[in-house]
This record gives sequence, structure tokens and C-alpha cells, in this order.
Amino acid sequence: MYTLYSMQSSGNCYKPRLLMAQLGLEFRLADTDSFDGSTRTDAFLQKNPNGKVPLLELPDGRMLAESNAMLLHLSEGSHYLPADSYERALTYQWLFFEQYSHEPYIAVARAWLHLVPGGRDKAADRLAGWHEGGYKALGVMERHLGAADWFSGSAYGVADIALYAYTHVAEDGDFDLSAYPGIRRWLDRVRGEPGHVSMDWRP
Amino acid sequence: MYTLYSMQSSGNCYKPRLLMAQLGLEFRLADTDSFDGSTRTDAFLQKNPNGKVPLLELPDGRMLAESNAMLLHLSEGSHYLPADSYERALTYQWLFFEQYSHEPYIAVARAWLHLVPGGRDKAADRLAGWHEGGYKALGVMERHLGAADWFSGSAYGVADIALYAYTHVAEDGDFDLSAYPGIRRWLDRVRGEPGHVSMDWRP
Repeated sequence: MYTLYSMQSSGNCYKPRLLMAQLGLEFRLADTDSFDGSTRTDAFLQKNPNGKVPLLELPDGRMLAESNAMLLHLSEGSHYLPADSYERALTYQWLFFEQYSHEPYIAVARAWLHLVPGGRDKAADRLAGWHEGGYKALGVMERHLGAADWFSGSAYGVADIALYAYTHVAEDGDFDLSAYPGIRRWLDRVRGEPGHVSMDWRP
Repeated sequence: MYTLYSMQSSGNCYKPRLLMAQLGLEFRLADTDSFDGSTRTDAFLQKNPNGKVPLLELPDGRMLAESNAMLLHLSEGSHYLPADSYERALTYQWLFFEQYSHEPYIAVARAWLHLVPGGRDKAADRLAGWHEGGYKALGVMERHLGAADWFSGSAYGVADIALYAYTHVAEDGDFDLSAYPGIRRWLDRVRGEPGHVSMDWRP
């Protein structure tokens, strides 16, 4: 069985939970809170020297870090990773876009405004920068969705899971999605996929 | 033939140049400077709505953004992407590590200190943060290299290319590699690989 070291409120940790639910993989959660120092203990750093969750322990005991690496690894051979070479390349593109141009703004704003006690005051001078970067990313997504239903090629797949994780809770970081109708329709399509589970769900 | 929209001094643009050289792929460079506005023109945004280089135009005219997506796409079926499923998963892991935990510190410090006119003064108050994040990433790499020769599993591959791109010029961002002997030996191993080309090289 897989073990996922995971913080329930983290969108990055939600990604492999959602994919494993949709793949029907059995796994257990090892709750690990990155806000209380649990990812910086010697024991955890032995498992992931980068000190982050999610961390996936494979059934044979080997470890894999990085949420989007888990998505690619777990989806190999399934319909959540496109079989077509170019569609697969675009999936890679959107996964890296998510980690570089989307998450550092939208997830970070959410963490400070929604998860960190007193974070709204502490982060007040950084919010404008996160909104600038985050709205730019949302604009790129909206433009894509004007001509396509999904980010993973012609069907729902791991690029949609990666981008859904923090986009569907962007309002927690004071992002207003009312001017992004394509994104709101895509969020509904993702929610309608077979086997979809919410961020609260636990195996 | 491939066309790579590329800025010669960018490590992200160097990654696909190096891999395409080692794969023996024919390609031409379309020089595109992200500092002079060339990536923000309407014509370029039609090609890449995220307004960044590198951008790869495939022989059939379709576009692919994100340097590490290019590495994965171009290396499929070659020995630069591990055939073993777990080694391939670790390759994914290091590629996402590079974009999230390494590049935003080491590449950004280099850009401001080495490429932006007057950048050393303008960025003075941010350098400590970039060094904190960058040295943390270098520490994770050094630890890995204590037990392994490569980041792409058992042989040189695209994770090594991705991490080499900015690590080998980390000193441009005032990073001191003298306390990282494992990294320095790995940099030498990368330089010794068949078909290696330097950042200056053009096809």
C-alpha cells in the first residue's frame, strides 16, 4: 500500500489524494503539518531532504517527493496521462507552469490569508505582488480555456488536477474569479469527473 | 527542423540547446530577449501566452513552452530519460525541485547581479533571501550526491541537464561552491559527457 505524508489543507497534498482516489489506489495518510515543524525533523528529513509535503512512500518503501512528479508517476499507463506525444508534452508544460507561474502566487496568497494565524497583517505588503502574478496566471489559463476544455490535451488528466488544486480555492487568497467564466466552467467540469473527491476527503 | 526561441544568457534556454546538441537534433535559434520586451509583443504572446523564453517550435509548427517540459518531451525514447519507472519518477522529482526550490533563488540572483544593468544595487535588499533559498537547494543537492553520481537515476540525463543549467553559473549570483565538493565533482562529470556544449554554443 502507498503512504502519503500529507497536510490536509495543502493543495499540493490534495493533488495526489485526488488522483489516487480516481485511480482506485489504496493508500493511507500520514498527517504531517508543515506549519508545526513536522517536515523539518531529522526523521522526516531522512525521508525527504527538501523538508516538504506531500511525500509519497511507494509500496516497496521507496520515496518520491514533489506533487507533480507523483501525478506523472502514478498516471503512467492510465487515461489521466495522454497517450499522444504532443498532448503529453503539453501536460508537462502545464505542470511546470503550475509550479512556477501559478502556485508561488495563488497558493502562497491563500496560505498567508487563510492558513497562517495573523497572516493577513503580516503579509499585507506582499499581497499586491501575489495578486499581480496570480492574475497573470489566471489570464493565461482563461485564454487557453477559450479554445480547449482541458489542460491535459483532449481529455481530463493530471494537468487539470494540478491546476485545479489551488485554482478552486483561489478565493481564499482574495482572488476574484468573476471575470474568468472559462475557468469557472472548467472548475465545474473537473468537479463532475467520475471519482472526484473534495479537498476534505480522506481515504 | 525545430526552432528554439531563446535568449543565449538564460540557463532555462540553455537546457534545450544542450539536450538537442547531445541528441544530434537539427535546430535553429530565434534570438528573443526577455529583457527588451521581445517576449511581450502581441506576435510573441500569440506563440506563448505566458510571455517567456525558451519556447520550442516543433517541426510541424506546434509550440511547446517550459524548459523542463522540452527536456521531457525531447528525451522520450532516448537514454537521457530513464527507462526504469522509479528512476523516471525521480527525474520528474528533480525537474520540479529545480523549478520550485532552485531556479527562483539561484537563477534570479544571477539575473539581478550578472545580467540586469545596475541590478546589484537595485536588488540589494533581496539578495539575502535568494542566498538562503539557494544554499538550501545546494545543500539538498550535495546530500544527494553523497550517495549518487547523477540526478537522473543511474546515468546522466535530463535532470542533470536541468540542474546544471544554473548551478554551473551560480557564482554569477555570488554563490560560493567551495563547501560543496560533491556538486563541483558532478559539474565536472556533466562537462565530460559526450556531446556536451557550453552555454555560449550556438548551432
